[in-house]
Amino acid sequence: RTLNLAIIPGDGIGPEVVAEAVKVLDAVASRQGFSIQKKHYALGAEHWLETGETLSDEVLNQLKDHDAILFGAVGADPRSSTIPSGLIEREILLKLRFAFDHFINLRPSRLFPGAVSPLSNPGDIDFVVVREGTEGPYAGNGGALRQGTEAEIATEVSVNTAYGVERLIRYAFELANSRARKKLTLIHKTNVLTNSGQLYTRIFDRVAAEYPEVSTDYCHIDAATIYLTTEPSRFDVIVTDNLFGDILTDQAGAVTGGIGLAACGNINASRQFPSMFEPVHGSAPDIAGQEKANPIASILASAMLLRHVGEEESAQIIEAAVEKDLKENATHERTTGDIGSSIVTLVENA
Amino acid sequence: RTLNLAIIPGDGIGPEVVAEAVKVLDAVASRQGFSIQKKHYALGAEHWLETGETLSDEVLNQLKDHDAILFGAVGADPRSSTIPSGLIEREILLKLRFAFDHFINLRPSRLFPGAVSPLSNPGDIDFVVVREGTEGPYAGNGGALRQGTEAEIATEVSVNTAYGVERLIRYAFELANSRARKKLTLIHKTNVLTNSGQLYTRIFDRVAAEYPEVSTDYCHIDAATIYLTTEPSRFDVIVTDNLFGDILTDQAGAVTGGIGLAACGNINASRQFPSMFEPVHGSAPDIAGQEKANPIASILASAMLLRHVGEEESAQIIEAAVEKDLKENATHERTTGDIGSSIVTLVENA
Ligand SMILES: CC(C)[C@H](C(=O)O)[C@@H](O)C(=O)O
Ligand SMILES: CC(C)[C@H](C(=O)O)[C@@H](O)C(=O)O
Repeated sequence: RTLNLAIIPGDGIGPEVVAEAVKVLDAVASRQGFSIQKKHYALGAEHWLETGETLSDEVLNQLKDHDAILFGAVGADPRSSTIPSGLIEREILLKLRFAFDHFINLRPSRLFPGAVSPLSNPGDIDFVVVREGTEGPYAGNGGALRQGTEAEIATEVSVNTAYGVERLIRYAFELANSRARKKLTLIHKTNVLTNSGQLYTRIFDRVAAEYPEVSTDYCHIDAATIYLTTEPSRFDVIVTDNLFGDILTDQAGAVTGGIGLAACGNINASRQFPSMFEPVHGSAPDIAGQEKANPIASILASAMLLRHVGEEESAQIIEAAVEKDLKENATHERTTGDIGSSIVTLVENA
Repeated sequence: RTLNLAIIPGDGIGPEVVAEAVKVLDAVASRQGFSIQKKHYALGAEHWLETGETLSDEVLNQLKDHDAILFGAVGADPRSSTIPSGLIEREILLKLRFAFDHFINLRPSRLFPGAVSPLSNPGDIDFVVVREGTEGPYAGNGGALRQGTEAEIATEVSVNTAYGVERLIRYAFELANSRARKKLTLIHKTNVLTNSGQLYTRIFDRVAAEYPEVSTDYCHIDAATIYLTTEPSRFDVIVTDNLFGDILTDQAGAVTGGIGLAACGNINASRQFPSMFEPVHGSAPDIAGQEKANPIASILASAMLLRHVGEEESAQIIEAAVEKDLKENATHERTTGDIGSSIVTLVENA
């Protein structure tokens, strides 16, 4: 079997961490007897500065032909750049999520043995956030009137559809049902955002009836940030909207020992388009090029990628290697390359 | 001088904690030689169940005539109630915030000496969140089409105005300028919510030019939850929108040793209408009536109330008493009444 992957290293620490993930992918492929064909795409702030292009229709079309995409991070360096804030993120990352209908944004949070949580009593953290990826406040709706005047009004419209919410919630119930604890928590702000809140609640309750073995509960987004601080181990699977998921998973990354360990899958669960796997962290221009970035988020993203394309065993080998590496070395100072090599060796000897 | 206060104890633990705050108010008033006239208003879930009324125009008019409002908490018990989710909160708490133009929602976060943070290295936490209170995603805009069908679409419209954002940001700069560190952080999600993001950024930068001594920075809401976990002491004053402020201040409450200590002011800074002071926590029906609730949030809310009506010294006496009480007793198991009495005694002997 030959896997046909698109690689988008991007900006800042993106290329450094992706390079290590690619080494790990190659190691596991040769161990498991399949091969990987890789095509690199130069997209990001640098490419924009050179060409004025973010993501052309031509490139978008080429990307469609891959089995999956490994994505690093994009974003301009805010200290020196003339690129409008957020432009690169919107026109590359968000454009890909919407164009390839990545309606499941899957974000596992685990406190690995050896990893150090900033909480004094973190407990046993192992949950997955199923974040919506193609609607809500990310729909790009809204606008401004009388911009720049004292009478300006600016709106953001969160757009939520039964179509989008039902496929999200079904995915989350399936996932919860496949896990040992079989628990699903809906997180929203139904007491204030009543229109979308009712839509989420109604569909959640209806689908719940089809999964009698899954226990369910509900939690407001504000209360959820408290639980993530005081008792994160209470969560098993969380389902939530696009913006709440964005916020929660950064907090979850911090709570489980650092955003340098958190990976994410932008998944088109109906498999019409390639899914895309990336670290939850951004391009971190302040530490780029210094061998300081932790490549584990990108390496775990590559494990999620392999799981998605059917290489479950390879995914498990990588995850076990990461776990072993962290157990032995999490508290040591190491370079990006040190961590990558250690995990490659562990994969080779698995 | 006679202060003319409205008291809205509300539901769940609201009445228990407000009762202690009122004792503390009385103690400080008699010590400082002013008197307090109090009128209690029975509003909340119980009142709704009896009368079908949330907050009538008549009561709203009566409330206008007070110098300030001390608010407990409202909200139905979700385990037994037939009250639609969020109705009480919206039709009482949010209605008051909007009717009395409480455009500043002021939420101090402090790790008191003696209080126990769930973080192993909390540092010296002492910041204030200036949350917008009258617009953004709380505007109640939006709706639903084809409700209950497969083709349903539900929207939430965040409405932001130059009028609302400028008065918020000016208040935040004044506050930052009055504090020792003189630092102000804008928190938003400008890379995705570009319309309101530009409005906030533009006004923030313009007003910043008038406060050369205040150092400023910007942080996305998702990154802010990381900093609140890894380095909360970095913040001095935070200015943010209504929903982000809601989320951040619950997390901040948890990080500083529990939401039972966090107070908040709903402030009409132009003083056209009475301001309202309350705990950040809700009605917590699961522990109501058991003398388990911590009244400190309500007691600190009464200190904020006194500061707002010009009784700065009284506010400081209460805050010092809370600080002393926590230093000596924070780790002891105590009832609501124990904590209240301890603080009353400390105020009397101040
Ligand atoms: C870069 C940004 C647009 C993005 C998001 O908000 O989704 C990021 O924060 C993430 O979580 O992947
Ligand atoms: C009860 C709810 C409507 C309210 C809010 O969202 O503002 C509460 O969470 C708060 O923070 O005061």
